[in-house]
Amino acid sequence: MKLAVVVRADLEMGRGKIAAQVAHAAVAATLASFGGAVFHSWLETGQPKVVLKAPTGELLTDVIARARAAGLPVQVVHDAGRTQVATGTMTCCAIGPAPDDRVDSVTAGLSLL
Amino acid sequence: MKLAVVVRADLEMGRGKIAAQVAHAAVAATLASFGGAVFHSWLETGQPKVVLKAPTGELLTDVIARARAAGLPVQVVHDAGRTQVATGTMTCCAIGPAPDDRVDSVTAGLSLL
Repeated sequence: MKLAVVVRADLEMGRGKIAAQVAHAAVAATLASFGGAVFHSWLETGQPKVVLKAPTGELLTDVIARARAAGLPVQVVHDAGRTQVATGTMTCCAIGPAPDDRVDSVTAGLSLL
Repeated sequence: MKLAVVVRADLEMGRGKIAAQVAHAAVAATLASFGGAVFHSWLETGQPKVVLKAPTGELLTDVIARARAAGLPVQVVHDAGRTQVATGTMTCCAIGPAPDDRVDSVTAGLSLL
């Protein structure tokens, strides 16, 4: 099991800003999957996470569409826009937690952030 | 309400690694506080987060001790050590969610990551 978070790499976000956005996505994924068997399996194995990048917002949108088409849990984060990026900007998405191969089938080709 | 995550700045972690560690801390804080009134208040206001830095592990340890002494919820993350840092290395901690002033009383003086 793993949780993938895919971050837009074309926004001018510093590392702290990125970390906060990824944390937001991970908390949303946790709340959405809380209590299920997949969630507990993920938690028991140390809640593995991988942080990947999408070069553009268009490519992130494409990843989200493919993850949803594959029936995976997807949480999209839009920034509140108080700093660094415009209000409502889509910054990242969480895919999973789900079995590794199902996540990989959607994220193959994306590089580590 | 807010959640602060304090990251060690003296480890050679890339931005993706940092984001994964901060997400780990935020998920742990979510699970630890789940269901309580403070948690729901935090969630309803958009789960605000701030990501700060501690220059050294010693200073992070000091922040953790002060947060615990103040009765705040604290979650410490030790890395599994598969990449970039040695196994078991303390990488960051989550403080909260808790009222802003209580978090600020412990994190005052720390810079944004």
